[in-house]
Amino acid sequence: MENDIIKSWNKNALEWIKVIDNADIESRKFTNKAILDLIGNSPAIKILDVGCGEGWLTRSLGAMGKFVVGLDAIPELLENAKIKGDGTYYQMSYEDIILGKPIPESPFDAAVFNFCLYQREGLSQLLKQVKKSLSENGYIAIQTLHPYFLLQNNLEYKSQWINDSWKGLPGNFSDGHSWYARTFGSWMSAFKKAGLQLHQLQEVTNDDHKPISIIFILSE
Amino acid sequence: MENDIIKSWNKNALEWIKVIDNADIESRKFTNKAILDLIGNSPAIKILDVGCGEGWLTRSLGAMGKFVVGLDAIPELLENAKIKGDGTYYQMSYEDIILGKPIPESPFDAAVFNFCLYQREGLSQLLKQVKKSLSENGYIAIQTLHPYFLLQNNLEYKSQWINDSWKGLPGNFSDGHSWYARTFGSWMSAFKKAGLQLHQLQEVTNDDHKPISIIFILSE
Repeated sequence: MENDIIKSWNKNALEWIKVIDNADIESRKFTNKAILDLIGNSPAIKILDVGCGEGWLTRSLGAMGKFVVGLDAIPELLENAKIKGDGTYYQMSYEDIILGKPIPESPFDAAVFNFCLYQREGLSQLLKQVKKSLSENGYIAIQTLHPYFLLQNNLEYKSQWINDSWKGLPGNFSDGHSWYARTFGSWMSAFKKAGLQLHQLQEVTNDDHKPISIIFILSE
Repeated sequence: MENDIIKSWNKNALEWIKVIDNADIESRKFTNKAILDLIGNSPAIKILDVGCGEGWLTRSLGAMGKFVVGLDAIPELLENAKIKGDGTYYQMSYEDIILGKPIPESPFDAAVFNFCLYQREGLSQLLKQVKKSLSENGYIAIQTLHPYFLLQNNLEYKSQWINDSWKGLPGNFSDGHSWYARTFGSWMSAFKKAGLQLHQLQEVTNDDHKPISIIFILSE
C-alpha cells in the first residue's frame, strides 16, 4: 500500500505543484489557516513538517519565525520545495521512519502531519517513532478530513478504504491511490496504541458551517 | 437553566417512566446495550449512576454483579426506581454536587452520565466534583447524542441551544426544557477544563450505520 501511495504521488507530483501554486483547492483556504494559526501561535519553535510535499507549510511556518524541517518521500516535490525557499528538506518515507531510520535534526518541539496520513496499517508505529523525535513537552499535530466525510458521502459510518485519493480535487490526476477513512473511534484507538493522549481537538468548518477537517493535538 | 430542567422533568416524570417501561425509544436498543457492555465488562465494581432517572441502568448494572448507587434530582423518578428493585438511591441535583455537597457512599470505581447532560454552564465544575468522588483509577463515562446530530438536523456545526428536549421522543411530554448541543471540540474543551483526559471513545451506530450516540471514557 505504501508503495502504491508513493507511485501515485511520483506520477502526480507536477500536477500537484500546479494545483497548490494556483490555490485551486477551495477548502485549503480554511484548513491552511487553521493549521498555521494553531502551530504558528503555539510555543513550539522547532518543527518537523512530515509529508511536507512542495513545502508551502514549511515555508509559511518559517515566515512566522519557526525553524522548520520538511520531510517527504517524493523527490520531485522536494526539489520544488528547495527552489521555492530557504527551508531545510530531507527525503524520507514513512517506511524509513517506522524502520527506525533517525530523523535528521531531532528533537523537535512539534511534528505536523497535514493531510498526509492515508494508511490503515502502520499508523501507530509511525506516530510512536515520530514521538521519539520530540522534545519533552513536544506535541504531534494531525490535520485530516473530518470523519463526517463518510456520512457526507453517504457511506456507512465505519472505517473503510476509499478508492481514489485524487477524486474531487481540481487537476489532471491519474492512478489515484486508495486511502483509509477513519471514524473518530478508529483515530482514538490508533493514538492510544501509539501511547499518545489527545490533548486538544479543533474542527474546521467552511463558510456553510459544515466541518471539513479536524486537527488532533497529541502528546504523551 | 438547571431550574427549568428540573421543572420539566418533574412535570414529565410519569410519562417518562411509561416510555422507558414500554421500551418506546427505538435508539435505546443500541445505546442501552453499548453503555451496559462498556461499563458492565470493565473492572469497575462500585458505580455511581448520575441522573439515574427511574433506575433502569442502576438495576441492569446491579444484575451484572456491580454495586450501584443512583442519584437523581426528581423525587417521582427515584420513588419509582425504589419500587422496581433493590438499588441504592439518593436525591441530589447537579447544583448540590457543584456546591460541594458530599456524594454518599464515595469513592466509586466509575461514574456514569447516560443521556443526562444538558447544560451549557457548569459542566466542567460538575465533572470536576464528580472526579473527586472516584477511586484512584476511577473513570467517568458519558453517553450523549452524537455531535453529528447537528448536521442530521440541518443545523450549523457549532455548539448551540436546542429548544425542546422532548421533541421527537414518543410520549405525551410538555414544557420541554432547552438543552445545549455540543460539537466534539466543545466536549473536549469542557473535559480539559475539568482536568480530565479522554481515554476512550465509542461511537454507537444504528442498523443503518448512522452514528446515534457517543460514549466518552475520561480519567485524570
